[in-house]
Parts: sequence; C-alpha cells; structure tokens
Amino acid sequence: MTNGTAYENLRYLCKKVGPRLSGSPEAQKAVEASFVMLQRAGADTVYLQPCMVPHWVRGEKETGYIMGADGSKHELRLCALGNSVGTGKQGLTGNLVEIKSFSELDALGTAGIQGKIVFYNFPMNPTYIRTFMAYGESGVSRTKGPARAAKYGAIGVLVRSLASNPDDFPHTGVTVYNDSFPKIPAVAISTNDAIWLSNSLKSSPSIKAFFKTSCEMLPDAPSFNVIGEIRGTEFPEQIITVGGHMDSWDLAEGAQDDGAGVMQSIEVLRALKASGIKLKRTIRAVMFMNEENGGRGGDKYLEIAKAKNEKHIFGLESDAGGFTPRGFGLDMSETQRAKVGGWKKYFYNYGVYDFTAGGGGSDIGPLKQIGTALAGLSPDSERYFDLHHAATDTFEAVSKRELHLGAVNMTALIYLVDKYGL
Amino acid sequence: MTNGTAYENLRYLCKKVGPRLSGSPEAQKAVEASFVMLQRAGADTVYLQPCMVPHWVRGEKETGYIMGADGSKHELRLCALGNSVGTGKQGLTGNLVEIKSFSELDALGTAGIQGKIVFYNFPMNPTYIRTFMAYGESGVSRTKGPARAAKYGAIGVLVRSLASNPDDFPHTGVTVYNDSFPKIPAVAISTNDAIWLSNSLKSSPSIKAFFKTSCEMLPDAPSFNVIGEIRGTEFPEQIITVGGHMDSWDLAEGAQDDGAGVMQSIEVLRALKASGIKLKRTIRAVMFMNEENGGRGGDKYLEIAKAKNEKHIFGLESDAGGFTPRGFGLDMSETQRAKVGGWKKYFYNYGVYDFTAGGGGSDIGPLKQIGTALAGLSPDSERYFDLHHAATDTFEAVSKRELHLGAVNMTALIYLVDKYGL
Repeated sequence: MTNGTAYENLRYLCKKVGPRLSGSPEAQKAVEASFVMLQRAGADTVYLQPCMVPHWVRGEKETGYIMGADGSKHELRLCALGNSVGTGKQGLTGNLVEIKSFSELDALGTAGIQGKIVFYNFPMNPTYIRTFMAYGESGVSRTKGPARAAKYGAIGVLVRSLASNPDDFPHTGVTVYNDSFPKIPAVAISTNDAIWLSNSLKSSPSIKAFFKTSCEMLPDAPSFNVIGEIRGTEFPEQIITVGGHMDSWDLAEGAQDDGAGVMQSIEVLRALKASGIKLKRTIRAVMFMNEENGGRGGDKYLEIAKAKNEKHIFGLESDAGGFTPRGFGLDMSETQRAKVGGWKKYFYNYGVYDFTAGGGGSDIGPLKQIGTALAGLSPDSERYFDLHHAATDTFEAVSKRELHLGAVNMTALIYLVDKYGL
Repeated sequence: MTNGTAYENLRYLCKKVGPRLSGSPEAQKAVEASFVMLQRAGADTVYLQPCMVPHWVRGEKETGYIMGADGSKHELRLCALGNSVGTGKQGLTGNLVEIKSFSELDALGTAGIQGKIVFYNFPMNPTYIRTFMAYGESGVSRTKGPARAAKYGAIGVLVRSLASNPDDFPHTGVTVYNDSFPKIPAVAISTNDAIWLSNSLKSSPSIKAFFKTSCEMLPDAPSFNVIGEIRGTEFPEQIITVGGHMDSWDLAEGAQDDGAGVMQSIEVLRALKASGIKLKRTIRAVMFMNEENGGRGGDKYLEIAKAKNEKHIFGLESDAGGFTPRGFGLDMSETQRAKVGGWKKYFYNYGVYDFTAGGGGSDIGPLKQIGTALAGLSPDSERYFDLHHAATDTFEAVSKRELHLGAVNMTALIYLVDKYGL
C-alpha cells in the first residue's frame, strides 16, 4: 500500500499504450512495455512465448438507426461485436423481431425469424448481487445469440449491451459463430437505446433497423504471452503462475479489463522480490494475450507446459477488475480447498473473507487439464459492468488503493502457496 | 435493487439543490426537497424539527501562495477550514514551520512557533486498510491543530488535506477552536501542494506563505431536522431511527457525504412501506441537519426525545458513503450484539459480513445517553477519502448498485429489529 507500482504501471498502459486488441500495433506495444516492467520488477528472467492470435479489426466507425413508420430516424449508439462479420458497404436493413429468451427465439423459429434482424433484449438481472452471475445469464445473447438467430435465417442481430445500469455506451465483446450456419453481422446497442427500442416496438412493430459495419477477421497474426519468472530455490520445478490478460477491447483503455490484473500480477512478483523472501518455488507472472477474442494465450501456455512436462502446482488469475478485493474463487480439490481455507484468517483484516465465489479464470483455466489448482481474485463486482468492454473503462475509473489492495492479497496468497505448497 | 429510488433522489439533491452547508439557502431547499421525498416514500407523517445551527460562510474564493527566496510565487490550492476565522482583507504572511506530530509542536513550543504559520503535514497512513482509521489518526491536525498552534502563538495554519491519495484538491472540514487561545485563520492545502511544500522547506526553510480568506461565523440560523415516520402497529411507542445528514460542505454536491446516507434512509422507509409488511414499531427516517460543523441536529433530536420521554430502542446511521456495503458497526450491549450477530446469515449473500467495524455515527450518537442501541452502515472505505469534503464529491462518483445495495442491507436490519426487537 506504500510502495506499490501497479497504479503507475497501469497509467502507462492506459495512457501511453491505450486500447490493445490482439493483433494490433498497440498489443505489440503492450508486450514490449510489460517486458520492461517485469524486468524492473526484479524478475530473474523475462521472456516471450510466441502465439498466433485472431486478428479482428473494427474498421470504420459503425453507424445505425431505427426508421420510424413516419420516416423519422433514431440514431443508435452501437458497435460491432468482436469477431463479427461486416455488413458490406451498403449496410443492412430489415424488420425487427425482439427476443427476450432463447426459448422465445426457438418458438418463433424460421417462420418468425427468417429475413429479419433479431433484437436480443436480455437485461442483466439487477437482483443478483454478484454481477458476474447476471453477466453469465444474459451474456449468452451476445456470445451465442447471433449464431442461434442465423440458424433460423436472421440477417443480422442487435444485442442489448451487457451493462448493469442503463447508459449511452455500446459495450462490445466477443460473439462466437457456429460453422453450420451463416455468419451474420451483429452489433451491440446501448442499454438506453435498447430500452427505447423495446418501447418503440410495442407501438410500432413494423419499424425497420439499418446498420453498417466494416469489421472483418484478418489472417491470424503473431503475438506473445509475456512471462517474468523468479526461480525457486528449493523446488524450482514447481511452478506457480499469477496472471491477467494483456489484450483489451479496442473501444477503451482496458483499465479494469484487464490492465488491472496484469499490473497486479507484475506487482506480486515485484513485492515478493523486494521483500527479500527466499522463494521455494518458481513464481511466474504471466501477461496472457488474446483473452478477449480467442483465448489463444491461455491455450498456448498450457501447450508449452505440456510439451516441457512442467509441473504447475497453482495458478492465480485476476480478471474481474481491480476493484476492492473481497475473496478468492477456488477451483481445486477439497483437500486443497481446506488448506487454503485455513489461511482465511490472514486475509480477513485486508478485506478478503469469501473463498467461495467463482473459480479461477479463463486464461489459467486450461491448466486444469494438467491438474493445476486454480484460484481467481474476486473483487467487488458492483461497478464492473458499468464500464466493461465500453469506452468508460479508463484509468480514471480505477482506485489506486483498491488496485493495490488486490495486489496485496494476491501476493499473500502466492506467498502462502510458495511457503506451504498445495 | 429493482425499484429503488435512492439514486434518482440523490441525483435531484446533488444536481438541483447542490452544496448545502448549514444555514445556507440550499440547506433550506434540501429540507423542503426531502420533505416531499419522504411524503412520496409513503411516510404516515412528515414533520420538521426546528433547530438553530451555526452559520459559517466561506466568503470570497480563497487565495494563497508560497514566496520563494528568489521572489517566485507558487500558487496553493487551498480553502478555509470550516468554522475558521478569516484573515482580513490584507491576508496573512509569515514564515513557515512544518509540523509532523503534536509532540513535535509541543517540543518547539512558543520559542519555535510564535509569529509563524504552522504547516501541519500529517499524511493519512496508507497501510490502514480501513481509511477511517487513518482519518481518525491524522484528522486531529485539522480538528485540533489550529487551536494547539494558537496556544504557542502561531498566526495561522496550513493543514495538509485529509485525502487517501495525493491530489490537487483542497479537502475542507471543521476545525474546533479552543476559547482559551486566539482564533487564528486556518486553511487546508491540497496533498500535492503539501508534498511540494514539505520538499521545498527542506532546501529553503525561510520561504514565506501568504493566504487570504474572508470566511466568517454569522449568528446562528434557524434550520430543521426532517423526519418521516411510519407508526408502529403493535408497539408504536418504541422508536427505531434510521438516518443520515442533510447538510454538506459547500465545495461539492455532498453526494457520498452524506447525500447517499439520507437517500438510503428515505429508501428504507419507502421499501418497508411498499413491501406491505405490518411494522410493529415506529420507524423514523431522519435527515439530520448540521453534522458537518456543529452536530446541532443530532443534539436537538436527543433533546426532543428526552423532553417527550420517547423510547428509542435502535438507531442506524449511514454516514460513511454510499459505497458497496461490507458490514455494520454495532454500539450496543453484549446481549444486543449477540442478537444482531445471530442475523449475520441473512446478510452474507448481500455482501455484508463484518459486524465489528466502528460504531454508530455522530448524529445518532447522542441517543446513547438514553440507552439506545446504535449501529452504523460500514461501506467499503477505499475510495471515500478521494472525495471527502472536496469538489470531487459529486453524483458521478456514486454507483447506483452500491448505493441501493447499502439501502437493501439497511432495510433488512431495520426489518429484523422491528420484527424481533432488540
């Protein structure tokens, strides 16, 4: 809390590098910047792990509007979904069908969907206290919605942004097509536009939507995970990983998602080194590439671990924002869970009390295949989906104390696992 | 979380009423606005409790600077401390003496202090996880510092702002003079200016400070506590109070301090009424006046309670910001504490787990004299002192979900006390 560097490192990442979607020049700049940060943090070795990544580009700023029956136009605040195809220069026009659940979509079927633009209006449930639960539940509209609509012959998709509170920003995020069906253009519209549109459709079901996107998927591009390591003195072959993801969406600075997590991970390594504690095991801070629209970095990390027959005893991920920490999600055996649970007392006075929420994270997730015990930092989630994947995810939304307090607790957990094993 | 009105009420208070220091026209406007809000919330009766309040005014925008030995000027971002006296039109000039603890001040004594401007540089300790602890420890520089400096003949005081992180804003707050010593002008300077000044004094101990303030204490002014009540059906004579303070400092909107608390208190009343639950006891939502620079509203509330021989069984205050709730501070007997502790299970899934932090609050505090059990909402404190008493305490710094989640937990506690007694 006194000497932490995560906040200033994050400022650099947000303000000097900026948005850094996989395959972009900024992502490469982030690789280079974090390499230097890991060296400065005192890593024994810093190295790059090459990995090919999807290279999706947004193209020109998207446009779109709703055409009223009277010829009026209501501009939509929208953005293409990550990995989606573009509309072509002429854009896309069609009648709308509002869908509030997949069962509603299935019930309408081809007869009700064909030739139309599907408008998914899945609000995040405000009564879930952990906003990630609401995101998980409504997020399928974005991740799977376009593919499911294509199955019934839809020509395009508008998705209500996944935001906890109504706002004017489109929140992007990945969509996953199904190769059995056509890839149709898909955009997120702001929650306020979604609320307006839903109301408008009640009185005027025949209004049409237009939108134009020029996004496209280019050939895979070379990129890297960035790894900083402190070699263990007693069991160097036992590897403990702490990480977050380096890439971010292209609409904002990716401060909370996940600049926070990568800078906390570097801070864990720095704090352990600066403490002078002789570490028994090998600690790796890993900046994963391509969490947002491919997960290739996480997959590559596992692939290399397998190829080298590495022994990964523990992985800790921070990818739920740099907000004030409340707990750790544990994805490990009952015995291991009990052992970690026994350490709760060391965390309570630092605001961390809940060892039940969620699991590890998507970048360390693949390590489960080789039996690695996993954990994820669980920060308070109330503010996260106000800025998630939107232009509001900026450095200014990060609290220095919250960010550093997360790093403090992560460092303590890594220290305990190093000391006592798992 | 679905129907809450606290956030929109707070928007009104911040944007339509604004800063509302005791005795100001805006404070009166806030009284009137909250009166209407309580009526709309469904209170059986809404009434005003007259109370005289100190009427301190800031006057013209303060100015001040440091004069270098070379004649250079460094402008200070400063503001008068609440209740402090002004410098007069000519301002105040003097040599500086930096003080880092009261024992340092006492050691210097009259010989070292007389005729000088004391610069209190008491940073908030960043290693305290609960920022209120750091505030309590360093806050004496502001509350007691000017009086203590006056004892040794100081002519004025600069106080380092009480902020968790270095920033460019002066954070005001009350100072309390001692009638045995002269009242000397006192201002807060921004933390960044304090850091700069401390460094400058190392190399140039003879630099002088100048500042000019035109603040003054006017005669006491009439004001009010605003009270909304739902009459109990079974034990109407047993009163449960939930409240926050209506007044705010004059530099900002007083969103987190304490617009949040008053709007949460109205929300508790609204939610209980809207639920249709038959309340056994009398529930009062109280908007206290004058917490910031006098505490007269809290004192008046006790005075009337005593005069009417009212039976106050429980008081709950929210005056630590509308941030995500973590617990309740309990100031009550061991038996009562055990009873409330037995309800912890109802709160855990709503993020509230800690029933040990802090006590009630300064507005309900006087009720302790008549044996009332007290509690205070304990929100996460990491961000609070970034904006406390500064121009940054605006509506935009409030999260709707966090604010409402606080109200949810407050409502649950009031419900339980109503149902089971205490």
